Formats: sequence, C-alpha cells, structure tokens
Amino acid sequence: MENASGEMPTTGGPTVGELGEAGVLRRVLAAFGAADAAIVGPGDDCAVLRASGDTVVTTDTMVEGPDFRRAWHDGFDLGWKLAATNLSDVAAMGARPVALTVAFAVPRDTPVALLERIAAGIDAACRALAPGCGVVGGDLGTAPVVMASVTAIGALDGREPVLRAGARPGDVVAYAGDLGLAGIGLGLLFAASADADGTARGDGVQALRDGHPAALRAQLAPNPPIRLGAIAAGAGASAMMDVSDSLSIDADRLARASAAVLDLDGALLAAAFGEQGGERVPLSAMLAGGEDHGLLATFPASAAPPEGFRTIGTMRAPEAGEAPGLRLDGDVCAPRGWDPYTVRLPGLR
Amino acid sequence: MENASGEMPTTGGPTVGELGEAGVLRRVLAAFGAADAAIVGPGDDCAVLRASGDTVVTTDTMVEGPDFRRAWHDGFDLGWKLAATNLSDVAAMGARPVALTVAFAVPRDTPVALLERIAAGIDAACRALAPGCGVVGGDLGTAPVVMASVTAIGALDGREPVLRAGARPGDVVAYAGDLGLAGIGLGLLFAASADADGTARGDGVQALRDGHPAALRAQLAPNPPIRLGAIAAGAGASAMMDVSDSLSIDADRLARASAAVLDLDGALLAAAFGEQGGERVPLSAMLAGGEDHGLLATFPASAAPPEGFRTIGTMRAPEAGEAPGLRLDGDVCAPRGWDPYTVRLPGLR
Repeated sequence: MENASGEMPTTGGPTVGELGEAGVLRRVLAAFGAADAAIVGPGDDCAVLRASGDTVVTTDTMVEGPDFRRAWHDGFDLGWKLAATNLSDVAAMGARPVALTVAFAVPRDTPVALLERIAAGIDAACRALAPGCGVVGGDLGTAPVVMASVTAIGALDGREPVLRAGARPGDVVAYAGDLGLAGIGLGLLFAASADADGTARGDGVQALRDGHPAALRAQLAPNPPIRLGAIAAGAGASAMMDVSDSLSIDADRLARASAAVLDLDGALLAAAFGEQGGERVPLSAMLAGGEDHGLLATFPASAAPPEGFRTIGTMRAPEAGEAPGLRLDGDVCAPRGWDPYTVRLPGLR
Repeated sequence: MENASGEMPTTGGPTVGELGEAGVLRRVLAAFGAADAAIVGPGDDCAVLRASGDTVVTTDTMVEGPDFRRAWHDGFDLGWKLAATNLSDVAAMGARPVALTVAFAVPRDTPVALLERIAAGIDAACRALAPGCGVVGGDLGTAPVVMASVTAIGALDGREPVLRAGARPGDVVAYAGDLGLAGIGLGLLFAASADADGTARGDGVQALRDGHPAALRAQLAPNPPIRLGAIAAGAGASAMMDVSDSLSIDADRLARASAAVLDLDGALLAAAFGEQGGERVPLSAMLAGGEDHGLLATFPASAAPPEGFRTIGTMRAPEAGEAPGLRLDGDVCAPRGWDPYTVRLPGLR
C-alpha cells in the first residue's frame, strides 16, 4: 500500500455539522467498494450477507488519543490500520474476511474530508489484504473526539475454527508478520515528533518515515498476513491467535488456554526477526512491542508451517507442579505489553 | 423489564484503571449469558456462530452527551436501550437476532460497576426481547467519555430479507410499537431535570418516572416489538423498517426507496396512538419524535397485518410529475426529527 498522506487535504472543506447526516453518509459511502458476500449493502436497517460455513465475528475500536493521534496518523492510514487490525482477528480463526461494519462518532466540526479519507483507507486495506471483503454498513454519530469502531465478519468455508486453546505438547510454535516493529515505530514517534509532555507534533513524521520506513509503516498502517490465516488452518494449525498486545502477553495467553508451556527460542527469534525492513529489532522489542497483528500459530510436528511462518519455539507439557505459560529459552518470561487501562501513554490523562 | 436504578451502586468501587483490562473483562463477561448460536463465545480472537439462512448485520453507537446522560440513564437502562435499538434493526429485516458484540471505550476513572450494569442491561434486553440471542464478544478501550458500540447479527432462517424498497401501490401501511413516546420522554427530562443551559440533573428523574412511566420508559429503556419482525416477514410484509429518527423521516425514506407515495391517515394515527400507557400523544409527537424503534411495515391489501400492528395509511403510485415521498391526509408532510450532526440538543456543543 501507499501512504497517501498529503494527497488530499483533510482540513478545510465542509464539516459534518455543515453537511448533516445524509450528506456525510453519501460522501463516506462513495469511498466503499462492494463486498462479494453482500446481497444487501449499506442503506437499509441491516446489510444481508450470504457466506458458506460458520461465521466468525470480532470488533475493535480506535479512539483519538489512546489509539491514534491526528498529528501522526493521516486519515487514510488510520482507516487502513482499523481495517487491518480487525481483519487480522478474523484471519487468526482460520477464516476468510467477508464484511466490515464501521461506526463513526466525531465532533461536529470534523471535516467531512477526514471521514472520507478514513473510509478510503478502510476500503483500500480490504482490497489489498482481503480481496472480496468490504464495508456493508455502519453508523454516524457525534463524540468529543474522533472514534471509529469496526466489526469484522468472516466465513469459515466449512473449516473448523482454529482456537487459541488447541496447542499440544510437541507442537511447533511459528509466527508470521512483523514482530516488534510497530512498537519501535511508536517509540520513534514519541522520541522525535512529540513535545516533552507527550503532545504529538506532525513536523518530524515525514523524516521518520524516510529514515525508518518499515517501523513507521508497521505502527501507522500495518500489513498483517491476513491470507495466511486460512492457509495455516488448511495446513493443520492446532492453535492460532493475532498478536496485538505483545508476543509475550499473547503467547502466554495461548499457552495458558492450551494448558501447556510455550517455550520461545531466543536464537530462532533473533535469526528470523532480528532485522526487518532494514530496522534492527532487539529481542526486548519482539517480546514487549504491541500492535504488530502478526499470526502466532502452533502446528503438529508432522505438519510443516506454511511459507511465511517462521519457527520460534515449541510447546511442551508442564512438569509436575509447573504452571502453564510462557518461557524464553527455558526460563519464566513475564508478559509485558499493552493494557488499555493501566499502561499510561505520554500526553494522555 | 424492571428499571433497576439504584439497586446496585455504579459509583464507588474499583475503577477500570485500578482493575486493568483482564480484571474488567472478567467482571463484564460474567454479566452475559450464552447465545444459542455461539459455537465459540467470548475469549478468542473472534466468536464463532452457526445460524441458518442468510445473515443480517447492523451497528449502532451510544456516546455520553449526544446519546445519553449519566444523570438520567442508569447503566442498566443504557445497556437495555443499546441492545433494544440494535435488535430492532435486525427485526426490521424480518430476521431473528442471534448475537451481539459490544465495544466499550471509557475514561480510566470509570467505576467497573457501571460497565457491569450496562452489561447486565444488554443481557436482560436480549433475554426479554430476543430469547436465545446474547453477547458473543467485544472490545475494551479508553475514551474521554463513556461510549458503547453494539453490532447485532441476525439469521433469516431461510426467509428473504424485508427491505425498505419493497412497498407497492395499494399496500397497507402499518406500525407496531410505541410512537412518539420516547420523544415526549426526552422533552419531559429536559423540562424538569435539566438546568437552563441543558445540563442534565438526576434529582427530578424519579418523579418523572412516577408521573409519566410510559414516556420515561420509552426514552430510557425502550421495549420495541422485536418478535414482530420475523412474524411480519412471515405474514408477507412487502417493506419494513425500524423507526429511529422519527415516523416522518423514516416513512419518507421508505416511500422514496419504494418510488411511491406513503399517505398517512391522521385519524387512524390518532385513534391508534393518541393515548399510550396513560400518556396523551399529539400527532406532532408521533411524526417528529425519534428513538421509538417501532416497526413501520407495508403489507399487500390481501395480507392482513399481524396482531400488534395498527394500520396508519396506504401506499399509492405518484401522479404524473409528483415526487415519491411522505404525505399526511393527502398533503405534503415535511420530515422532521433527529439528525446527529445538525440537531442541537441543549447542554451540548
């Protein structure tokens, strides 16, 4: 995908308060292409979907401040990220994304152009990451800050869902996607494009994009391996999840859900992910950085992880008296990463 | 349903910031019963649903300030209303609600008890209005004010969806549910329980509930006729929609979508809805009051509207040069009601 920052102004032009609901809706909907599964698209009380097999559903919200800053995030990137993070949860079940709904709540003085850019980013991410998937409905309202809530629906096409609880002793642990890059990107933004109190500034962002393209893209408009979800399910994945809070937090969750020990191999991690897109990524960033939205999966030793996955550890049974959970090279590894209610980001209450 | 205001304190106790995401999630999830269609419920990347026929999906967000005030809305009522309004959109397609997802974004100092009460209200509304439907997943985040976004999924069980565009000349127009009461309730709250600048106060709410129980309940915890959606579809409804913005706005939308004239009969409206739950409801309130979430449906003259629907008008073809849209007793009737971006509520920017 292209970062389209600056291609279209998202300040100026009519505000949502000037245009009213019907006018805003018309302009936002124009940004969305069709979804293959939609028998009825936006415009009625509900959209109507026809898909095969069982259905998966997930939802995720982004709020200006805790989840994004307008000084850093172009509307297009924001929409892209919102779609990508939800599509990633669908992929992590082994499902194929078929439709999104989008609820916007924004201040009355928000330029309509910003919503159009967010919508364009959502649509572009669907086309690129999950062809055939598209926005089928939504809601418009007002709020003190810009917020967008996306729900994603996927089809299992007759497959069984891949749960996080299915890992078995002896399984290989593998990962696909960026790992730690998004957290490095966030750190760079706070270091170079924020005031001492954490207030985001836009002035340094382009220089950071030029100097650290992979880390900035991973943070601002991530590119998770959506197609690999269904492929991993087809290859026999025993457990899978989207790594959103951090590898250490989410691997620990997978291990506990499976009542097993997940032992990460530091040397395999360093070999596979120590350098990504020209960025050096230390083990600490791989373990504690959030928002990468890669796929963590386990495979029986008899099934080779599909191309795109890198082996990073193994599952084993807990020893007598040992608790299930995460280990790194055999030692206990405390989960560290993102918690929306206890982690304090600079520049926020 | 019972208004449970005051049964459980929603101030005091731990805040979401004190408890952290995992602790908040545990307490909120405990409020939700199972959904019959959920093969996999909350706790994985997605929920997994198994339902018959095509699927319908809709989403709606409520934001503290424009959509509710904590001084008026007990958390339980708020949750109830959030579920009821989404279930109503599912019913309006002729579908059976099977699952909800809920995304909360709240300030860190929000008492966890408030989220538990909202969750309890959502669950109670599902049990009462759409048995078998329940919450299957969600998201927790932070925001400057309390926001909750619900997505509802329904199953058509082999039926065709009932669209708003299907009304034909000669069809009977019918309505089921409260009509104008929710708007009267909002007017009473602003008149009796708000300061001159519109700031909501809690002190007069109980007296209003005692004096105007039907209007207050319609505004704070509405009871839309969810079951009648599938029944109307089975009875041959040609078009149907949820009346959320106002009868005049939504009837005009149905007429235009159907390229026909929808002629409301003032005498039928007065006879059927002039008195509801002890409250006198003038025609102006029926036409312009929003948030009732009743069902507006059209039926071929050969099919009697099911019990619970009252006939309020007829569809006819536009005459030469006449635009499709709403009429009242043959005259043009300008749509008036709720628009989130242009209607200014007292006490808000």
